[in-house]
Amino acid sequence: MKNSHLQLSSKRLFNRLDELARIGTTPQGGVRRLALSDEDKCARDLVLKWMGDLDMEIQVDRIGNIIGIRPGAEDLAPVMTGSHIDTVINGGNLDGNLGVLAGLEIIETLNDASAETRRPVAVGVFTNEEGARFQPDMMGSLVYAGGMELDEALLATDNNGLALGQELSRIGYSGSIDPGSIVPHAFIELHIEQGPILEQENITIGAVENLQGISWTEITISGQANHAGTTPMHLRNDAGYCAAAITTFVRDMAREIGSGQVATVGTIELKPNVINVVPGTARLTVDLRNADNSQLTHAESLLDDFLGQLSGSEGVNIDTTRLVRFDPVIFDNTIAERIESNAAMLNYSNRRMTSGAGHDAQMMSRLCPTAMIFIPSINGVSHNPAEATDESDVLAGANVLLHTLLDLTDS
Amino acid sequence: MKNSHLQLSSKRLFNRLDELARIGTTPQGGVRRLALSDEDKCARDLVLKWMGDLDMEIQVDRIGNIIGIRPGAEDLAPVMTGSHIDTVINGGNLDGNLGVLAGLEIIETLNDASAETRRPVAVGVFTNEEGARFQPDMMGSLVYAGGMELDEALLATDNNGLALGQELSRIGYSGSIDPGSIVPHAFIELHIEQGPILEQENITIGAVENLQGISWTEITISGQANHAGTTPMHLRNDAGYCAAAITTFVRDMAREIGSGQVATVGTIELKPNVINVVPGTARLTVDLRNADNSQLTHAESLLDDFLGQLSGSEGVNIDTTRLVRFDPVIFDNTIAERIESNAAMLNYSNRRMTSGAGHDAQMMSRLCPTAMIFIPSINGVSHNPAEATDESDVLAGANVLLHTLLDLTDS
Repeated sequence: MKNSHLQLSSKRLFNRLDELARIGTTPQGGVRRLALSDEDKCARDLVLKWMGDLDMEIQVDRIGNIIGIRPGAEDLAPVMTGSHIDTVINGGNLDGNLGVLAGLEIIETLNDASAETRRPVAVGVFTNEEGARFQPDMMGSLVYAGGMELDEALLATDNNGLALGQELSRIGYSGSIDPGSIVPHAFIELHIEQGPILEQENITIGAVENLQGISWTEITISGQANHAGTTPMHLRNDAGYCAAAITTFVRDMAREIGSGQVATVGTIELKPNVINVVPGTARLTVDLRNADNSQLTHAESLLDDFLGQLSGSEGVNIDTTRLVRFDPVIFDNTIAERIESNAAMLNYSNRRMTSGAGHDAQMMSRLCPTAMIFIPSINGVSHNPAEATDESDVLAGANVLLHTLLDLTDS
Repeated sequence: MKNSHLQLSSKRLFNRLDELARIGTTPQGGVRRLALSDEDKCARDLVLKWMGDLDMEIQVDRIGNIIGIRPGAEDLAPVMTGSHIDTVINGGNLDGNLGVLAGLEIIETLNDASAETRRPVAVGVFTNEEGARFQPDMMGSLVYAGGMELDEALLATDNNGLALGQELSRIGYSGSIDPGSIVPHAFIELHIEQGPILEQENITIGAVENLQGISWTEITISGQANHAGTTPMHLRNDAGYCAAAITTFVRDMAREIGSGQVATVGTIELKPNVINVVPGTARLTVDLRNADNSQLTHAESLLDDFLGQLSGSEGVNIDTTRLVRFDPVIFDNTIAERIESNAAMLNYSNRRMTSGAGHDAQMMSRLCPTAMIFIPSINGVSHNPAEATDESDVLAGANVLLHTLLDLTDS
């Protein structure tokens, strides 16, 4: 179905974004809406009300994923879009929320035009994408796609020992449908880039063709705490120095590998962390990402080699725990091409790109042909109250999503 | 006065060490006796009682330093020894305490022998040497030596906002004597090494001829927090990487300068300190020490140069605050020679050495000829419940102190 006359209402879309952002507003103007919190419940209630107002069929599954469906002319697998409405501890109002609310705006536009689509159009709201309260992240879509057992997910606990399953029941979103019982014909997720590339290159639409593999390692170094004044340099087993050496090593390694390899030491904790004591223990985390799995594996093995050498030369013990390992995902090229051609048709500058972050689309790609649409993030900032995107870019993304969904409802 | 027949009682000395260590014992078997705490009061009361039992004249000054004096045959400036009885949060039973209690053991030995000395012998107990609760450290001796105004010291506050002067009154140790009104003829402090050198070289007595200068710098780096997956390496302003680069730089620098230069990054704190976020800010401390002031100044300037380069190449803002700067101290060579010759006379292996830590003797050297005696620390460990020294080494140190004090009472 090609309906280039269809006009999204940017006003309605921004009104919904604003209304949803008022649930869990933080003093800094950000949003705190942790998965399965009271704020999450309020936001879910609001989205459910909107879906009801739009005459959508609503399903809630056992992991709390909400699927709203606008029926098609034929009883076929739906074309699905969607994302999540949980946030990090002090996040913005676009991450996830945009993907859901752009979906609702498209449904309302189709309703207003009494437009009939061959396939149903579905909007998914996935549980606990952020992983800020319950790990792992992207849990709702992971369970939906069969990548994690439901029972295991329900037992995940937060820092207060509360189980996800309990909290799901408490807020009234423990549904009766088995996750993944609707296998979509295709899935497309609209999301802010959360990075600087589109803005730097002054491009409006990213046709996301793949997603980086992610490798998270926790490294614990046990050396010897010693007096900073009385211990000669050659008699030290300095865990803090080792943490620093690992940090500079992974940075240099990523630059050497090039071609999209990124490496980040996001956390370092020293003990005793006192100005005049050589650190006895250090804990740090290394986040490695690459869209090419062989390169990612190579980076992991270079890091392992370095840790082995460092342990020997510094006389420290080094333990590693692999916290997360996701292979890179290659999205559906046909959908990525449709995103490009629709962007071009609408006169939006566009480019192919790689997602550096994890998204629900990553999980959904296990089930059906999937791709993503990115729009620019101002200053590349996300997971932060300062997260923002120009309104014209938001509308551009929603328009490309509309036309790509419509293409797929006919396919 | 040469009294090589005088015999210290190791039993009495260890009994006193044990009794004092029971005030503030921690579950790990260490000692927590923060300056001007209730534990400090109890320990002071006990030392005062012992001094009274030994018929010493006792003075408490306005900063709470306790000076016990055994009169001499002539009304001359006393020869003084001593140290401190406050500890770090979880310290050992020898750091400081040994210097005070070896002094009392020497007084008791002189009393038992009815030995007359030409000059008085004094034992000082200096307030707040550790600086674990009130900064700066070595405060009592610093005020005693005129390096800090009394009024300023009394206004120092702890983390709960309690002023040192208030706490001094509360525990009953706000004395009436002006600090420093007794200028000693000489000062000698017996202390554990708190480092590994004597043990490594299997030497019993260190004749401490100088003390490293200390330079403490707090460095705050302001970069840009960004998503670890979506921010290409070349678009980062990674404060955590900068903290790591500084840490490895100062280690390499110290090794290159050699000759006793030490450099330590004891604390690193990243923000937001999240696994998948490039750190936006980092705070770290650099501890530089060298017994040669020109080398120490050189190290400081190499660090400054590096910070300037790093700020430019990484696009971050770097602020520095000099927290502490003490020039190196050169002790009195004549006293160091006496320590060596007394150690040799008593058949203890000995060497000249540099103190890497700060001590009350460092401040007293502003007032009078001063030196220190070090004895080995097992595994070089101090500021830790595992702090220990062989009993034979403790007795050796006390014996060398006795004979060196006696030499000086005649001079």
